[in-house]
Amino acid sequence: MTPVTKAAPVATLSSSTIARLRELAGAENVLTEREDLIPYGFDGTAALKHGAACVVMPRTSEVVAAVVRFAVSQGIPVVTRGSGTGLSGGSVPVEGGIVLTLVHLHRILEVDPANLTLLAEAGVITKAIDDAALPHGLFYPPDPGSMKISTIGGNVANNSGGLRGLKYGVTRDYVMGMEVVLPDGSVAWLGSKCVKDVAGYSMKDLFVGSEGTLGIITKVLLKLVPRPKARRTLLASFDSMEAAARSVSRIIERQIIPCTLEFLDRRTCECVEDYAKVGLPTSAAAVVLMETDGHPAVVEEEAAAMESIARECGAISVEKAADEAHAVRLATARRSAFSALARIRPTTILEDVTVPRSHLAEIVAFVEEVAARHRLQIATFGHFGDGNVHPTILTDETDHEEMERVHLALEEIFSKTIELGGTITGEHGVGLAKKPFLAGQFDQASYTLMKQVKQALDPQGLLNPGKIFDLDAPTA
Amino acid sequence: MTPVTKAAPVATLSSSTIARLRELAGAENVLTEREDLIPYGFDGTAALKHGAACVVMPRTSEVVAAVVRFAVSQGIPVVTRGSGTGLSGGSVPVEGGIVLTLVHLHRILEVDPANLTLLAEAGVITKAIDDAALPHGLFYPPDPGSMKISTIGGNVANNSGGLRGLKYGVTRDYVMGMEVVLPDGSVAWLGSKCVKDVAGYSMKDLFVGSEGTLGIITKVLLKLVPRPKARRTLLASFDSMEAAARSVSRIIERQIIPCTLEFLDRRTCECVEDYAKVGLPTSAAAVVLMETDGHPAVVEEEAAAMESIARECGAISVEKAADEAHAVRLATARRSAFSALARIRPTTILEDVTVPRSHLAEIVAFVEEVAARHRLQIATFGHFGDGNVHPTILTDETDHEEMERVHLALEEIFSKTIELGGTITGEHGVGLAKKPFLAGQFDQASYTLMKQVKQALDPQGLLNPGKIFDLDAPTA
Repeated sequence: MTPVTKAAPVATLSSSTIARLRELAGAENVLTEREDLIPYGFDGTAALKHGAACVVMPRTSEVVAAVVRFAVSQGIPVVTRGSGTGLSGGSVPVEGGIVLTLVHLHRILEVDPANLTLLAEAGVITKAIDDAALPHGLFYPPDPGSMKISTIGGNVANNSGGLRGLKYGVTRDYVMGMEVVLPDGSVAWLGSKCVKDVAGYSMKDLFVGSEGTLGIITKVLLKLVPRPKARRTLLASFDSMEAAARSVSRIIERQIIPCTLEFLDRRTCECVEDYAKVGLPTSAAAVVLMETDGHPAVVEEEAAAMESIARECGAISVEKAADEAHAVRLATARRSAFSALARIRPTTILEDVTVPRSHLAEIVAFVEEVAARHRLQIATFGHFGDGNVHPTILTDETDHEEMERVHLALEEIFSKTIELGGTITGEHGVGLAKKPFLAGQFDQASYTLMKQVKQALDPQGLLNPGKIFDLDAPTA
Repeated sequence: MTPVTKAAPVATLSSSTIARLRELAGAENVLTEREDLIPYGFDGTAALKHGAACVVMPRTSEVVAAVVRFAVSQGIPVVTRGSGTGLSGGSVPVEGGIVLTLVHLHRILEVDPANLTLLAEAGVITKAIDDAALPHGLFYPPDPGSMKISTIGGNVANNSGGLRGLKYGVTRDYVMGMEVVLPDGSVAWLGSKCVKDVAGYSMKDLFVGSEGTLGIITKVLLKLVPRPKARRTLLASFDSMEAAARSVSRIIERQIIPCTLEFLDRRTCECVEDYAKVGLPTSAAAVVLMETDGHPAVVEEEAAAMESIARECGAISVEKAADEAHAVRLATARRSAFSALARIRPTTILEDVTVPRSHLAEIVAFVEEVAARHRLQIATFGHFGDGNVHPTILTDETDHEEMERVHLALEEIFSKTIELGGTITGEHGVGLAKKPFLAGQFDQASYTLMKQVKQALDPQGLLNPGKIFDLDAPTA
């Protein structure tokens, strides 16, 4: 989190520039009216806003390339945007720059069941990817919280996680190839449909998670997997976070790798119960959502084992979903966590620290201690099996005194995370929000290395400038 | 494959340079005698040799860094080497340069069962990684053919594959972090023990498969998985490659993802039978080794399904391993393929083209047609489930007329592969051997992109120069 940024006055582009953009993209695909630009000035991140000068909505990769070539020739910065659901300010505009939104690149171009692949334009909604795989008995596992509205291009650019990461990994694990418009406006295809391909550097892997700072992803080739035949969902409640953590460790020690091991802390449980009425025990200090999928026999066995491990570790209750509707209701407890918390105070700052999973209980306890010390409301939920926690600060960005305490708390949480061998961001990205803390996580050599790559690929620093890090070069 | 390269006379380093290297690495770790250098002049690739000027065998990362700093200050090229089992000439020395062999960095530093990770120095033998995981009930799946002698650092630098790729993926899928000595001699740590980490660019993913051209990998942090509880091995013989291909497609259509689906063509079967006496039917035109692992119930079910699919598709015979010893014997048919073929003619050129798996039968038939047309002995085996085939040319590098035909055949095979959306190398890397064909696989923009990365990270072009591609810059 950077200090609160007010929406600054919109820098304008010259009328000849706007005219040229209209020629390139079609007049109906260029927005310049102030009221039209407002929704493009922020994303899902609290307290970060900039005024966009102009929004361009290309309908083909060729137009993306043409706009980039023109922008670069004029030295105009370009910020790419999908649905704007990002949680680190990665698609917040740059003053005087172009916002390039790819939501009109929304075609699924191919599902190839023989090769277990799907080719889509970058603006396709994440959930539509899995919906397209379904009739073929196939599955696209990554399921970020925003999957019903986020775009696949945004997911790839941010290497999004989700609730199934423990077993299925993250977006990166499903990216086989991509089309990308480079900072000079040239169009490159990276990767292939081959499940093994070591020809040259894996440039697609460099672009996954590069947050729009190295190029603009316009198409993605994704790997699909067979759809699991069975699934079992359980919700276990504990009277302490330690008991919940013990359960999770014991499940993994017994070599069960379920698809989901999600948790809510006491404060989150209370808010969720108040909001979604899912029937959580009022005495619960921690709730763990467990989901196993795969072969029916294995699923039954693993569900039974997880239930008995939770009871061994002192669960107050273990609710086992009887059917799909019941499973959805249990998962709602976790899926509604952010919405439930966002109602409490005017500003909701959702953090995303991740530690090696053996340190999870420690970081959760540390966050609680920090909250008490700085008199802040922090609710924590997240991906227990991945060591990825979302300390969520319920605050008010207009209260400067409280925001000072928020910043102190965040600095302490980030420092502790790094001390535990963790990362300041497990799945939300660096963007603007975590940029001030990034260098603290890296040694000098690896931090410099990233800047060298950015400098080499985007020497003018015009693609999503100021995100992830500031280049020392004056162009950035 | 580049034209046959004769061992050129060894360029020497000055005596003051050698003296300084002895100071840095210890005199006992520096080889300069001609007869000591001979084994370092080539790797596992046919017909590629250069004389090393000097071999340095550091025992710590610090010494690696010190040697690199010194070499760079003097403008001396450095070629890194593990066990020298590479199949694309990636560790063949540069005249007048240093060969840095990392076999003395051979300690396993940590096995962490709570986080399912293993930290090892780069010179650890691949199989020792899995051996260290075993007592914890854990598993390191990547199993390149050379796993009993190859080093893990070499595997990571080349993103090695293996026989279990279909289900378990390749080396990249198990690399969580690494220590790397950069071209300026600085030491960077990339990645973390976190299963989710999106802080900055994924530089570790750039270094995986970079073949020693961007930095020198000195430590690797690997992901382990629970060891499968059961395994079943089957060997099915067919009287045509088409029938074998049909079986493989049908297995995947029925959404069975076994760990192994390997094949041998008729010529390979004959050589293997002659060499290893594993009892292959003499009429077999194709043999498919199938292996499923995991939960005992699932394994039994999948093995039964694969057997019946093979029979439906007209298998002459399906042999099901009764026990572990039997399974090892069946796997020997595939594991001994290269050794069996290497006995036939003086020179064995092992290629590594890969296509989207739906095109596998087509590329195998094409290779047969090319062999007949150019009057060459080409045996093909490989990873059916991955679309990764190893057309193996049995030839004699001293027969110039035959080598001309070899080159024509290779060019045609590479062109066809690229036309089918494939890659010139699925798991062996580009090195020197496939460098002339690399540009043909890429569009101009993506080929340029790779060079920009190399140029930015190694501006003097001193790390493994001339491998993968030649930089246009005069330093390369």
